[in-house]
Amino acid sequence: MDETRGLTYRDSGVDIDAQDRALARIKQIAKATFTPGVLSDIGSFGGLFAPEPDNPQGLVLVASADGVGTKLQVAQMMDRYDTVGQDLVNHCANDILVQGARPLFFLDYFAAGRLVPERLASVVEGLGAACRENGCALLGGETAEMPGLYQGEDFDLAGFIVGSVRRDRLLPRNVAAGDVLLGLPSNGLHTNGYSLARRLFFEQKGFQADTPLADLGCSVGEALLAVHRSYLHALIALAEDAGSGLHALAHITGGGIPDNLPRVLPEGVQAVVDAGSWAEPPLFGYIRREGRVPEEDMRRTFNLGVGVVLCVGRDKAGSILSALKRAGEEPFVMGELRAGTRSVVYA
Amino acid sequence: MDETRGLTYRDSGVDIDAQDRALARIKQIAKATFTPGVLSDIGSFGGLFAPEPDNPQGLVLVASADGVGTKLQVAQMMDRYDTVGQDLVNHCANDILVQGARPLFFLDYFAAGRLVPERLASVVEGLGAACRENGCALLGGETAEMPGLYQGEDFDLAGFIVGSVRRDRLLPRNVAAGDVLLGLPSNGLHTNGYSLARRLFFEQKGFQADTPLADLGCSVGEALLAVHRSYLHALIALAEDAGSGLHALAHITGGGIPDNLPRVLPEGVQAVVDAGSWAEPPLFGYIRREGRVPEEDMRRTFNLGVGVVLCVGRDKAGSILSALKRAGEEPFVMGELRAGTRSVVYA
Repeated sequence: MDETRGLTYRDSGVDIDAQDRALARIKQIAKATFTPGVLSDIGSFGGLFAPEPDNPQGLVLVASADGVGTKLQVAQMMDRYDTVGQDLVNHCANDILVQGARPLFFLDYFAAGRLVPERLASVVEGLGAACRENGCALLGGETAEMPGLYQGEDFDLAGFIVGSVRRDRLLPRNVAAGDVLLGLPSNGLHTNGYSLARRLFFEQKGFQADTPLADLGCSVGEALLAVHRSYLHALIALAEDAGSGLHALAHITGGGIPDNLPRVLPEGVQAVVDAGSWAEPPLFGYIRREGRVPEEDMRRTFNLGVGVVLCVGRDKAGSILSALKRAGEEPFVMGELRAGTRSVVYA
Repeated sequence: MDETRGLTYRDSGVDIDAQDRALARIKQIAKATFTPGVLSDIGSFGGLFAPEPDNPQGLVLVASADGVGTKLQVAQMMDRYDTVGQDLVNHCANDILVQGARPLFFLDYFAAGRLVPERLASVVEGLGAACRENGCALLGGETAEMPGLYQGEDFDLAGFIVGSVRRDRLLPRNVAAGDVLLGLPSNGLHTNGYSLARRLFFEQKGFQADTPLADLGCSVGEALLAVHRSYLHALIALAEDAGSGLHALAHITGGGIPDNLPRVLPEGVQAVVDAGSWAEPPLFGYIRREGRVPEEDMRRTFNLGVGVVLCVGRDKAGSILSALKRAGEEPFVMGELRAGTRSVVYA
């Protein structure tokens, strides 16, 4: 999940022109396949498909594909395989939640150089636990052994989720200047920024996975493997209630707030974010300081403690904050929307 | 697609007991996630999910995940990347067709050590062409760059398809002793048996991708890259017509006829196949002869020229054969069903 199509290749050193041409071509190819059921464009968090395109209250299917990215390599260092399965399902569930959808089912793809049955079972254990937590059926999967592609017991893991939402409950809806931005905390890196974090901890610092981090009260490996949270239970009721005042949700993944929040903003609407309005978890401060990472890179690489951003109507902000707190969440007001270029600016 | 869950690990040298325990655990884990919408068990060609479980005529979603397997490595040798995208979509479309479903949408997962934009675009070109051919929207995808997992420009490709079928049109239906078995030709290895074929051609024989194969009138690479056929247009009308006499379809993938045909048979029904009833393409004879591959292994590794098997009511076999021929297909009668242990026997 270090990259998603549309945000891909950043910092990878590839020819930017070639990449832009390829992306433009990919969008064109995809568009040429679109049937009347397709409601979304390539680049939204999840793809939207209406089996009954003419029914305004019909069911819309929301689908998303994702991988775990290089967090897998931390799991391998820790020899612990259940958490990446949870990361993957929760990430996928969040990606469709931000369009208002509740998960229906999930399928996985697991490919390895040599299949270690206990390891596969452990990965599936994590997938199953998170599927249960998200009310989502683990409907199937594909397992492949490809010794020529993957070294030894190395493996990759990808997932695919399908959820549904009533068409008139799709998010975003009614986003406008004047809306208030609320945030819900992340509980770690989630699934983004692992290339940078691994470089810092394991190459520059020479740490092992079990090296204790005094600032954090746990080992490097434990800090980096913290499971990506699902926001389904915190937010689905607000999403499904047309009168709740919730206008949009942005899942903060690769690209951080500056790349993900604009995806739910209409043209002419700008987000003003107060970066001092939430308590940044110490792991990010440690990475910024020890890696001497410029603030701009921190913001575009990490969630910095914000797992999801809510755009809410100003008159409903108070009641939504109260509802979230009653549900045991720790929401914070982190900014607002105003007229301006579709982007994020920091106050 | 060399392995699918349930058929996995064959010949891979892993501890069979450990593998059986892991598979049993995986099935148990998946089952524990099942919600009322789930209509299928793990192990069918595609997973079945009914968004309205109480509606007997409601829509059933059929979903399947797949990879391309080691056919990717032949593509890499040929430096040709559009065909594997077509293989993947067609394979997925066939896997849900055999449950009666028409594709709605497809998503891909593309992961590489280093992303080569033109190569990704070429893969997506193939995905797009096959999506258009199958009336299926290319709804999204995920691209990941993971230099620590994949070497250089190596990549893996997986796909996820969702289709739909009216619940009362699901296949298989009414399969019984007395049914006639029809076959439709494959046009090559499709996506199975590549580990064995690559070992033979490139290791034992020391061939290059462009080595000509006199028996076949093309190069090794061309023979091995032949695109996996989609059977959607040939068969969907029969599947959607409750009175057509079509009872079941089996997509012949890893495990061949002996492993795939029983998946659509009820207990107490046995398939009797006459292996001499169709013209086996010369590529398989070449592999059998030059690789000195035992017949049993040939049958469980390759499709041997049969891409899909139809179980049809005896009284409708003639009209189905005629309809398929009118549609430009070359169907053949290849056996029948009788009372017996659920399995395939060769006449």
